[in-house]
Amino acid sequence: MAKTRLPPHEIADLGLAPGGQSRVAWAGGQMPVLARIRERFASERPLEAIRVGACLHVTAETANLILALADGGAQVALCSANPLSTQDDVAAALVYEHGIEVQALRGEDVDTYVRHVRSLLDGKPHITVDDGADLMMTAHGLGGASLEDLIGGTEETTTGLVRLRRLEAEGKLSRAVLAVNEARTERALNDRHGTGQSALDGIVRASHVLLAGHTLVVVGYGWAGQGIAERARGAGAAVIVCEIDPLRALEARMAGYEVMQALDAAERGDVFVTVTGSRRVLRGEHFMRMKDGAVLANAGHFDVELDLEELRELAADIRDVRPLIEQYTLEDGRRLNLLARGRVVNLAAGEGHPAAVMDVSFALQALCVEHLVSRRDELAAGVQPVPESIDREVATLKLAALGVAIDEPTPEQQTYRESWT
Amino acid sequence: MAKTRLPPHEIADLGLAPGGQSRVAWAGGQMPVLARIRERFASERPLEAIRVGACLHVTAETANLILALADGGAQVALCSANPLSTQDDVAAALVYEHGIEVQALRGEDVDTYVRHVRSLLDGKPHITVDDGADLMMTAHGLGGASLEDLIGGTEETTTGLVRLRRLEAEGKLSRAVLAVNEARTERALNDRHGTGQSALDGIVRASHVLLAGHTLVVVGYGWAGQGIAERARGAGAAVIVCEIDPLRALEARMAGYEVMQALDAAERGDVFVTVTGSRRVLRGEHFMRMKDGAVLANAGHFDVELDLEELRELAADIRDVRPLIEQYTLEDGRRLNLLARGRVVNLAAGEGHPAAVMDVSFALQALCVEHLVSRRDELAAGVQPVPESIDREVATLKLAALGVAIDEPTPEQQTYRESWT
Amino acid sequence: MAKTRLPPHEIADLGLAPGGQSRVAWAGGQMPVLARIRERFASERPLEAIRVGACLHVTAETANLILALADGGAQVALCSANPLSTQDDVAAALVYEHGIEVQALRGEDVDTYVRHVRSLLDGKPHITVDDGADLMMTAHGLGGASLEDLIGGTEETTTGLVRLRRLEAEGKLSRAVLAVNEARTERALNDRHGTGQSALDGIVRASHVLLAGHTLVVVGYGWAGQGIAERARGAGAAVIVCEIDPLRALEARMAGYEVMQALDAAERGDVFVTVTGSRRVLRGEHFMRMKDGAVLANAGHFDVELDLEELRELAADIRDVRPLIEQYTLEDGRRLNLLARGRVVNLAAGEGHPAAVMDVSFALQALCVEHLVSRRDELAAGVQPVPESIDREVATLKLAALGVAIDEPTPEQQTYRESWT
Amino acid sequence: MAKTRLPPHEIADLGLAPGGQSRVAWAGGQMPVLARIRERFASERPLEAIRVGACLHVTAETANLILALADGGAQVALCSANPLSTQDDVAAALVYEHGIEVQALRGEDVDTYVRHVRSLLDGKPHITVDDGADLMMTAHGLGGASLEDLIGGTEETTTGLVRLRRLEAEGKLSRAVLAVNEARTERALNDRHGTGQSALDGIVRASHVLLAGHTLVVVGYGWAGQGIAERARGAGAAVIVCEIDPLRALEARMAGYEVMQALDAAERGDVFVTVTGSRRVLRGEHFMRMKDGAVLANAGHFDVELDLEELRELAADIRDVRPLIEQYTLEDGRRLNLLARGRVVNLAAGEGHPAAVMDVSFALQALCVEHLVSRRDELAAGVQPVPESIDREVATLKLAALGVAIDEPTPEQQTYRESWT
Repeated sequence: MAKTRLPPHEIADLGLAPGGQSRVAWAGGQMPVLARIRERFASERPLEAIRVGACLHVTAETANLILALADGGAQVALCSANPLSTQDDVAAALVYEHGIEVQALRGEDVDTYVRHVRSLLDGKPHITVDDGADLMMTAHGLGGASLEDLIGGTEETTTGLVRLRRLEAEGKLSRAVLAVNEARTERALNDRHGTGQSALDGIVRASHVLLAGHTLVVVGYGWAGQGIAERARGAGAAVIVCEIDPLRALEARMAGYEVMQALDAAERGDVFVTVTGSRRVLRGEHFMRMKDGAVLANAGHFDVELDLEELRELAADIRDVRPLIEQYTLEDGRRLNLLARGRVVNLAAGEGHPAAVMDVSFALQALCVEHLVSRRDELAAGVQPVPESIDREVATLKLAALGVAIDEPTPEQQTYRESWT
Repeated sequence: MAKTRLPPHEIADLGLAPGGQSRVAWAGGQMPVLARIRERFASERPLEAIRVGACLHVTAETANLILALADGGAQVALCSANPLSTQDDVAAALVYEHGIEVQALRGEDVDTYVRHVRSLLDGKPHITVDDGADLMMTAHGLGGASLEDLIGGTEETTTGLVRLRRLEAEGKLSRAVLAVNEARTERALNDRHGTGQSALDGIVRASHVLLAGHTLVVVGYGWAGQGIAERARGAGAAVIVCEIDPLRALEARMAGYEVMQALDAAERGDVFVTVTGSRRVLRGEHFMRMKDGAVLANAGHFDVELDLEELRELAADIRDVRPLIEQYTLEDGRRLNLLARGRVVNLAAGEGHPAAVMDVSFALQALCVEHLVSRRDELAAGVQPVPESIDREVATLKLAALGVAIDEPTPEQQTYRESWT
Repeated sequence: MAKTRLPPHEIADLGLAPGGQSRVAWAGGQMPVLARIRERFASERPLEAIRVGACLHVTAETANLILALADGGAQVALCSANPLSTQDDVAAALVYEHGIEVQALRGEDVDTYVRHVRSLLDGKPHITVDDGADLMMTAHGLGGASLEDLIGGTEETTTGLVRLRRLEAEGKLSRAVLAVNEARTERALNDRHGTGQSALDGIVRASHVLLAGHTLVVVGYGWAGQGIAERARGAGAAVIVCEIDPLRALEARMAGYEVMQALDAAERGDVFVTVTGSRRVLRGEHFMRMKDGAVLANAGHFDVELDLEELRELAADIRDVRPLIEQYTLEDGRRLNLLARGRVVNLAAGEGHPAAVMDVSFALQALCVEHLVSRRDELAAGVQPVPESIDREVATLKLAALGVAIDEPTPEQQTYRESWT
Repeated sequence: MAKTRLPPHEIADLGLAPGGQSRVAWAGGQMPVLARIRERFASERPLEAIRVGACLHVTAETANLILALADGGAQVALCSANPLSTQDDVAAALVYEHGIEVQALRGEDVDTYVRHVRSLLDGKPHITVDDGADLMMTAHGLGGASLEDLIGGTEETTTGLVRLRRLEAEGKLSRAVLAVNEARTERALNDRHGTGQSALDGIVRASHVLLAGHTLVVVGYGWAGQGIAERARGAGAAVIVCEIDPLRALEARMAGYEVMQALDAAERGDVFVTVTGSRRVLRGEHFMRMKDGAVLANAGHFDVELDLEELRELAADIRDVRPLIEQYTLEDGRRLNLLARGRVVNLAAGEGHPAAVMDVSFALQALCVEHLVSRRDELAAGVQPVPESIDREVATLKLAALGVAIDEPTPEQQTYRESWT
């Protein structure tokens, strides 16, 4: 049911609203934790009269977060953190069906993007919700009116936190920012299980490789690398881990994986996945040793983990052999199959995180916005951890959504515990 | 390089040949076992002057089998075992680039199909290669010239074997048929690992569900059910097995799965997969108990394992919510999500078996054709097992393709072993 | 409560009966399947007036089988299949508390053993229950009265079956023998799970090695090898499989294990376990390549799988370093640690199979004895498989004991199934 | 080779030295990381003229730590942290063969123990090495000369850290204490893998239960609980986790375990293991619901996690049925089997941590002692974390001991990394 007067918007096509609405509803059904919070927000209205500016991927899952904030009483404006991921029908549904201000066009250019960010800041938000820190960084850059009413913000990505912490180190971050990405529930679901499943899913979709019986090399054993290794083993692959940090390398070995140097792994792998956060971790010297038919994929944020320049130099022939596979034939005839041009494979060849994962991320976001508002007088400037109470609440709601009940400590146990700490 | 004179053919469009040729080459690169056999065939020519009629899915993988047989000296004609799976570009490449007779059109009607089968039999094949037994059954039905030169055939599917065994039980099967589907290498790769991976892949693609933390119910614990259960556990799901056979049920339990009656499992599952080979194994009484949001999929050959009629009767509303999801809303508001309308999910929502699996199936096919020819004077009529020597040869080639070397028994061990049996 | 008149017996000490009785009761509590059968036997008395001669390990678990047969109406006499495993207190309890004839002394010499076997045959048993085929083979050797009343027998071991099949091949086996060892429930529990757990248990007890993070090499991938590999991986070890059979090697590889030649594995392993049924599978050439501190164990029936002669020749020093570890120091100082002198490690360093495993074996034995009696008029001479109905009954009872309920097929499914086969 | 003059000692029997020496040598062979450090210590002598007082379990593994410290130049005196674990032959070997002062008698009473602790403090140690904080706490209690030369200490247990942190909270801890127990390598090996394996090992030894096919309930999902759950699943058990912390409960569920309230789990489990650090987590209400034959074990530090008082009250009969099993028969005949009287099962029914685990703990201890000495001028009073550089060094040495090589970052990667943080 459309609002009689539409909010400000710059979107592709209002006529796409019905399809977008159906997509938003489906995603909502997959996000029971956020749904529970939205119900409470609708009845308690903790965000009454609060202006929220959100710069996120404009997707059906995000729409559910926006609607939860709106049901909590907030006036929300949304722009897109990434022009390639914008779902124009979802944008239309938000505007037409729900009266949300949206500034987002799939494929918009940089100038347009900058204009949208500024437009949101012109609205003088109390709270920013960022995926890459653009709102918060820009607000600090512009200063003045942009910052005037700003209580604080939340941040979804590691990249955004790096930017914000640099600003903080320079003594210039004047507002509190909650590091959603580092919450314990986020770590548990998103990095480990979300990336673990979706990265392998992307690899299998693109290459149609059988994992069982084959050797998969994971380069990097952080949270995401652990998830990928665990899922690959669970799919029947023999898994090799490469890692430069001895503590992580030892953890990988204790978990039963083979651990070795990348030059040795290069000769053994059928599938390679990089997920280090570093650069050029598989290079010419590795490509030179790989088996005919090896598959190369990257699950790290940036497409710099595979040295594509060296790969091109080594190739006698390069051709597209399947929609997401570029095949590099070396001088001696060996063929290396690069997936999705080295871009993050779970997004480029798959659908990214399942909604069940986004459910937790956005539940954290919603509760963090509420926290910033309710504790506005106690907040210190700087990047802050998500309060443990929020993490626990999300875990509790997620367990309920999974149909899992757990015990409370008895009074005696409570006393005993407190006597210890 | 096209032959100067083209073979008989009825296909969609010869102009699709280049695209098809590229696809055939890519698949060939994924089928190293078949490639090795093809090389030997090309040098030994064991099928010289043999006419082969093949009724198979007309895909890039199949094309590599056909080319191996042709390189072995055979004159091969191909029609399609399933009009929906025909890849018209592959058909064109076989005709135009390789001079193979092909009678196959994507989406052809039943009359056309029957005409193609008969056309192949008119060629008086020495050997039939079947996926569903249509060539062999029809040849027996027609009798006369169709059977005249027929040495025997191979069969790829359980369904085909059932038909052939009925014919045999009636005393009417007059040729030898090798049961490729029951070879040990086929069982090991195809049913367990091929179906295990591809069924889950289909489910995740269609529903985008997160398996970790959720409960997956597998109904049926045959080879395919074992594969699905193993892969689902490997993906972090809690797995429940339902099985009516106590021996299999015990094996499932000893493997660490929960085993229970389907009515109890109905209340626990987030995702349900049927793979029993039976009918209506999940019915109204089960749907009535399921949780809101439950996902229903079938990985069995026929779409009769989920009782869709009862599901429709129970539904207050039915709608398409994603490309491969039909959502049934029950009277009380619970939503059940049916994938791919209950059709076999690894084909209907995914790409079916990885080429590495087809490699083994088609390597068996090629060696079985050779066996039928070389032993033509010793063959008994009836469904016969694949000779163990062929199974061992395929296993040996597959190990080599995987880069795995194994030991030979020492002479002493050989003697010791023989003294025991 | 002792019988007023004691049966014939030759045992160590009747005074040990109370301790033995307690041990028998404890084992009985761990064997619910056999207990259920025993209850039925007590009420139905299917073995009334039947004489059973049993030559088995005289243990608390065996005692429960004997008592089940006795409760079924049989008159049972027991001697020991292995003088080292006889539990004298159990023997005493059987005689004193239950009136069973027992001829068994721990550590008895061969002459005594032979006398006991003959003594049992003098009783003209209707049924023999063997663990190694001594009763059945001796009865055939003696002929005459020993065979007179003999209906048939059961056999528990592969070794016994080999002997019996040789006799059969010579046309001399005149009675039916049921191959309990090859029943499907026996395979599922005994070889895979029983040996898997108990072999690793024996290795850890003897060596106190940490499996996680270390590399375990399994030589031989039959049922027992599969069990050991699966449990070792489950314990966090990196597992390497060596196998000479390409089909098994491929199965191991598809299960995600590394597969390689033993010479290569020799350099990688921290722990080696042989379970091939063959001879000298790890020899001097392998020992020469092993790492300092490597642990050597055998889980095969005979102590011939490790070439101890070559090991001794290579050693500069040999010493006992822990109760079950003999350490061989090679010329260059590397130390190889041999467990239990190469004898079957799950018995020599552990307690052998858990009672839950013996429960299934002995339930099969009891039902096979009943079958031989009830079908005595239909039995063909020769080694016969355990009837599938018995396997199913044991599986059904075991599921019940585990608290697992399964579905029955619906009438429609039953019909559908029958229409297919 | 005995020293000509023996050090001060109060031990059981000097004549036991040869046996002890052999045991110390065997353990040393299992502790390659410590061995490497000992070699360096012997050449660098970083502890020259340092007096170390150590209050630890007097075992063969501990002896190797003591010898490493001594080779580093320290003058070490050792007493026993637990009279039950003292190995008198090891004590004798330390005194007789290595000239180490030892005050330890197996089974010594509390007065003797107190005397030994004071005797060590009378030696005015520069460094204390504690397992329970007795030396450090007593030194602070006595004050004066005991503290005079004291630089700081190390602590091996959680219990000890709790005591020390209380002291610190009261403002009374005047020296630095390094929390070895909380080092990352210690966590990775000791709690997860060490306890995981040894707790299950203790349970299997005591009860001889088959884990495959049975249900194991882990109460508590901290590090040790995670290890036990993982190993039990790896052994084929169906695993249920009970946890009061929602974050941990969610992690358990995401790892694929069933998670439920203890009252529900009580009806399902075949084996129960408590490892919560809390009290009375399984009580009468749980025992009342358990199945006949259930096995009860505790893997927590103290024997208070199972409410033995309520268990006794519920029992109609209590008897010892196997060496480490006390069987409680309830009024209705159900039998509950308590292992090791509820004491920590990996020590009470097994051998505790494998030497490979102690290797890491004691390597940390040795490097922490060196750190305290070399940085004595920079140390702040209070419980301090083990420096990350020590953790990394131990991980690096452990990887080398496992034969694992890893890569170094390239200069470019190093730069890239630093630019990020």
